[in-house]
Amino acid sequence: MSRYSERMTTIKASEIREILKLTQIEGLISFAGGLPAPELFPLEAMEAVSKEVIHNDGKLALQYSTTEGFKPLRNHIVNRMSKMQVKTTYENILITNGSQQGLDFSGKIFLDPDDIVICESPSYLGAINAFNTYQCQFREVETDDYGMKMDILEQTIIDNPNAKFIYIVPDFQNPSGKTWSLNRREELITLANKYDLIIIEDNPYGELRYEGESLPAVKSLDTKGCVVYLGTFSKTFAPGLRIGWVCAEDEILNKYILIKQASDLQTSSINQRELSAYLDKYDLDTHIKKLISVYKVRRDLMLDMMHKSFPKQAKYTVPEGGLFIWVELPEQIDTNALMVKAVKNKVAFVPGGSFFPNSDTKNTMRLNFSNMNEKNILIGIKRLGILLNEELLPERK
Amino acid sequence: MSRYSERMTTIKASEIREILKLTQIEGLISFAGGLPAPELFPLEAMEAVSKEVIHNDGKLALQYSTTEGFKPLRNHIVNRMSKMQVKTTYENILITNGSQQGLDFSGKIFLDPDDIVICESPSYLGAINAFNTYQCQFREVETDDYGMKMDILEQTIIDNPNAKFIYIVPDFQNPSGKTWSLNRREELITLANKYDLIIIEDNPYGELRYEGESLPAVKSLDTKGCVVYLGTFSKTFAPGLRIGWVCAEDEILNKYILIKQASDLQTSSINQRELSAYLDKYDLDTHIKKLISVYKVRRDLMLDMMHKSFPKQAKYTVPEGGLFIWVELPEQIDTNALMVKAVKNKVAFVPGGSFFPNSDTKNTMRLNFSNMNEKNILIGIKRLGILLNEELLPERK
Repeated sequence: MSRYSERMTTIKASEIREILKLTQIEGLISFAGGLPAPELFPLEAMEAVSKEVIHNDGKLALQYSTTEGFKPLRNHIVNRMSKMQVKTTYENILITNGSQQGLDFSGKIFLDPDDIVICESPSYLGAINAFNTYQCQFREVETDDYGMKMDILEQTIIDNPNAKFIYIVPDFQNPSGKTWSLNRREELITLANKYDLIIIEDNPYGELRYEGESLPAVKSLDTKGCVVYLGTFSKTFAPGLRIGWVCAEDEILNKYILIKQASDLQTSSINQRELSAYLDKYDLDTHIKKLISVYKVRRDLMLDMMHKSFPKQAKYTVPEGGLFIWVELPEQIDTNALMVKAVKNKVAFVPGGSFFPNSDTKNTMRLNFSNMNEKNILIGIKRLGILLNEELLPERK
Repeated sequence: MSRYSERMTTIKASEIREILKLTQIEGLISFAGGLPAPELFPLEAMEAVSKEVIHNDGKLALQYSTTEGFKPLRNHIVNRMSKMQVKTTYENILITNGSQQGLDFSGKIFLDPDDIVICESPSYLGAINAFNTYQCQFREVETDDYGMKMDILEQTIIDNPNAKFIYIVPDFQNPSGKTWSLNRREELITLANKYDLIIIEDNPYGELRYEGESLPAVKSLDTKGCVVYLGTFSKTFAPGLRIGWVCAEDEILNKYILIKQASDLQTSSINQRELSAYLDKYDLDTHIKKLISVYKVRRDLMLDMMHKSFPKQAKYTVPEGGLFIWVELPEQIDTNALMVKAVKNKVAFVPGGSFFPNSDTKNTMRLNFSNMNEKNILIGIKRLGILLNEELLPERK
């Protein structure tokens, strides 16, 4: 008998995390992480609210508090959900340690070994890792520019009666940057209702839109309470606080609360109060507008440089928001091998393979544009372009 | 097929949590929680370090950071572990969201459904809840004043070849207040080595000793790397930060790091830096001495009042440290029913039944003395004494 549980045989370290270790090299320009720009963190406001919370409510901020979370913060989240056109109440909000914890809990609540998770192809690596610890299997559904292809999704549901939920990132998906159309969102709800399936809607980037019109959250179209919405302040405020949330109907949310209690009792009292005080006193929308203005410039510059420097065989998405551009290269390119050369040339990206839970896709990469300044985007994409052109040179001879 | 995973059928809300809701009644004196005294939180120091961290390292404090945790904090913990006579390095420390998360991860890493957890009888409710989510079974081992009875423990191990670990709180146990002797600690290591079992040593209260001499942590006696030590700052600093840790040998700690990454990526960057700055600048030992001086008075007063007010048939432990006194009443007393009467009389405790994962023990209760001031301890124990005497009156007639 192994000393460890069965699940430990299937869990491996995140490749991205291993890659991020490589990117500590001096002078290396990294498009590998998914980090927000630290120069935009609201430090002065944070200093003010932190002082205020400790001064006025220190004893409560340092004490144990409820599993569900700080009620005024949950009410602020109700307000943010209304921007996604979701009507809800604080009683349907649970505070989590970032939305990663919401992903873990979703696995814990719904998945038995060999249950099926239906996801987009590619899908978010952090979700794949979280669900994997519950020994599930994945069925990837092909997407086009409007979301999952609905005929393939329905066939996948029919073929997999032990499918438990459909996991999607409908806005500026990580890693593809793609966004679901309103039609597809509506069709998804119809299918989930027809087959009595849960939808896990993971939306960390929805408020970071640089062009086009905002679309209602899938949760806002939910007619039977089948959608679990995961949100976070990591991309709109700061990830270091570890504040995310789950929004779900009563029966389902109660399961998340029970699991939260058994997992770590509660999210940090002081961080919840500080964020809530920030939302009382400052306008997060104004802050988000500032993020958008900076990130839009970086996205535009990266796309422009890719257009100029990348070989014509490289295809890539043009995301309307979020943090990522997704690149598809000719099939002979192995981006894992390319990454080694790239690091030698002081530029880094994430090879796309890890985002496919089942297939062994080697010719894709994810580029992040939020965490590097304009100068570095300029230089870094040039470096990457040179490398890609070299790789594809034999073909062009 | 159920919409939820199998594990959800066995999980129920913590009874303590439900009880704590009752104790919000005005004028009610509660010995039910396990909360530290908020009037002793180091608020001024917290205000100073919080300002310093945001001012000097704000961008790093609000950004994502490593899964393992903030290295200077891990080094501070190495220093604290040395007070428990454990020699370790920062590389063997993982920061968790309180030690409750360490409990959850222990279940996740070691337990498959129907695996056996060997625990003290009674055992800590939070651990029982955490392990339960991995569908394990429990074998309770009787304790005396020196720890588990070793002959019973060995027979339990022999009878349960699928036992995965032995879970213990060796110092001032929650709920019993009991402490393991040095001999028993050594015998435990010998048995664990003999049968190749993991020991989960949960030690939230070890530094809160009011009399007698400190004993080395079980981890300090570990010769083959079989002990996983769970620590926390919740009782010595403040629970609202949610900072605990796991200390284990390389191979095992790596499993905890993988699970941490999949569960919530990392513990709050800012809280880790604030606590680390506090430990740089202030003397936690001086603070702990202050806690000890206050808690010792409360313990002594509670024991004194129990001696004066409780009927002679009530037996109770005299803990040398920690937060709890454990009461055993005559068998005809059902403390769940008693609790309803107690709340009507504006005093509360935790009925002991929940601390026994298998048996249906109704005649016990746990009393907390850290969270109520002297006046309330005086009045509250009197109220409880009157109630207990009434309950036992028919017997005395």
